[in-house]
Amino acid sequence: MSTITVAQAAEFLRGHDSYLILTHKRPDGDTIGCAAGLCRGLRALGKTAHICPGTGATPVFAPYLEGLLAPEGYEPSAVVSVDIAAAGLFTDAGQPWLARGVDLAIDHHPSQEFFARQTCLDAGRAACGELVFDILRELGPVTADMAAPLYVAIATDTGCFQYSSTTAHTHRAAAALMDTGLDVFPLNKRHFRTKTWARLQVERLIVERMHRYDGGKLAVAPVSLSLMDEAGAVEGDMEDIAAFLGQIEGVETSVTIRELEEGGCKLSLRTGAGLNASAVCALLGGGGHAAAAGCTVSGTLEEAEAAILAAIRTVQAGA
Amino acid sequence: MSTITVAQAAEFLRGHDSYLILTHKRPDGDTIGCAAGLCRGLRALGKTAHICPGTGATPVFAPYLEGLLAPEGYEPSAVVSVDIAAAGLFTDAGQPWLARGVDLAIDHHPSQEFFARQTCLDAGRAACGELVFDILRELGPVTADMAAPLYVAIATDTGCFQYSSTTAHTHRAAAALMDTGLDVFPLNKRHFRTKTWARLQVERLIVERMHRYDGGKLAVAPVSLSLMDEAGAVEGDMEDIAAFLGQIEGVETSVTIRELEEGGCKLSLRTGAGLNASAVCALLGGGGHAAAAGCTVSGTLEEAEAAILAAIRTVQAGA
Repeated sequence: MSTITVAQAAEFLRGHDSYLILTHKRPDGDTIGCAAGLCRGLRALGKTAHICPGTGATPVFAPYLEGLLAPEGYEPSAVVSVDIAAAGLFTDAGQPWLARGVDLAIDHHPSQEFFARQTCLDAGRAACGELVFDILRELGPVTADMAAPLYVAIATDTGCFQYSSTTAHTHRAAAALMDTGLDVFPLNKRHFRTKTWARLQVERLIVERMHRYDGGKLAVAPVSLSLMDEAGAVEGDMEDIAAFLGQIEGVETSVTIRELEEGGCKLSLRTGAGLNASAVCALLGGGGHAAAAGCTVSGTLEEAEAAILAAIRTVQAGA
Repeated sequence: MSTITVAQAAEFLRGHDSYLILTHKRPDGDTIGCAAGLCRGLRALGKTAHICPGTGATPVFAPYLEGLLAPEGYEPSAVVSVDIAAAGLFTDAGQPWLARGVDLAIDHHPSQEFFARQTCLDAGRAACGELVFDILRELGPVTADMAAPLYVAIATDTGCFQYSSTTAHTHRAAAALMDTGLDVFPLNKRHFRTKTWARLQVERLIVERMHRYDGGKLAVAPVSLSLMDEAGAVEGDMEDIAAFLGQIEGVETSVTIRELEEGGCKLSLRTGAGLNASAVCALLGGGGHAAAAGCTVSGTLEEAEAAILAAIRTVQAGA
């Protein structure tokens, strides 16, 4: 375990060649954007660089990978991971490279597990994209084609500068990325101002069928398989659906319950300051953070709702 | 008509006292935030400063005015307008002051009509709040209590840094405002991540009842008075509702039709690159911009929908 600075990470990248870049499983805009930005930056230095295939990127993020995925049989001499906090978060395609050994991990998660030979970590950054941008700036001029995926990394990981993780540095990074001539409007439109028809139907049905308790402070949305069918929704339409209820004025605690194909239900809990979400979900065998946690339970949607309500009451009574 | 620089505007503000600050009618976050930020900044200089009452601020913006409205009978010696582009945009309470003469107009609209003795105008700024911030920086240190309303001005006028008006300067202004120690998270939560229950019902009913044409490229939402009743919605719940349809994937042209209490309908049209919204609405006696225009027509919702569809077809045929 060794932590290195931005300048040292740049030095490493300048000193090697034939890179393979790894992204984390269930990829978000940050890991995909970092990989694409870094890959383009390395290529601009005249290096060979590719992203490990099998990222599992959803259609909204897949375009950023175009032309950057490694061809079959590619033999890298340096392996770099971006936005991966732990060995358990590697993709299936990334597993052999984890076994071979990761040369450099670039990350912003405080939970970083130091699986790599060298780690460039700054947990003060809202997005790993901020860190990759600083590294690229050390390596040479950042162009608009590198800036686009890095902007996506930063903007999506901060809910377009709305999450509490956003800092003055985040805004300065966005400004510097725009200085490259990057037009951020189409990126904002795609990621923050576009909903599929199916997603709109999901939201409509959730509003129609949700349950409210405690004078509206507690909201529960049961999302049955039949609701998904009725909406014509697939998994790609459900991104960040657990945050949907939390935007309702007056709602402090929200639960989204997804009925699973294989039986049972997956619950996502979001809480305000007064209730520890992780403690509630721990009672049902799950876990997470103080404000956002989850668990999987057996039984029907009705049974899952009764179980989480009971768990919430237990934690509230103990608080 | 005289245009002055940021430094000259600061000089003017340093050189006078007993300020009255005017906001525009149907106020948004920019005019309210500018007024509040400027008022606090002037008071920090030891000046007397108040905002003209009767702003008409909706509940979401009214809190920023607390403690800043002029007492009855207040006699200012200098009148300053913020974010007001034209004489026709003064509030009822502002009319007498327009008649007396506005000493300084601070604005960012290219359509500025130069009604004031002096005008500090920068049409390159996404929000008037950016300009007020630059002026306050000339006057002295900007504190978090000045920064909060200025952040609201900038963030709301750019759709939280998403509109095409957003520049690198906008992000740098946000960063500098955060440097004052300002916590932007509660402000983002209030303005971008909160929907009233009634607003959610309005959106649900719109999705349920909207009409789609041209394979989903054209969307029309009739909003009847009975829909408003059913949703329990008041005017404050309808902010920016014309933008709601525009977020649907594949929608290029959208029309929101509001049935009016007094009879007839008010139409808001949003278009993409291929269709001039202003030309369409001109056919029905209205007007606006290339991408956003409106008109008021007599008749029922059905008649209004038929009329705007015909107007769209006419302009499309002529294009």
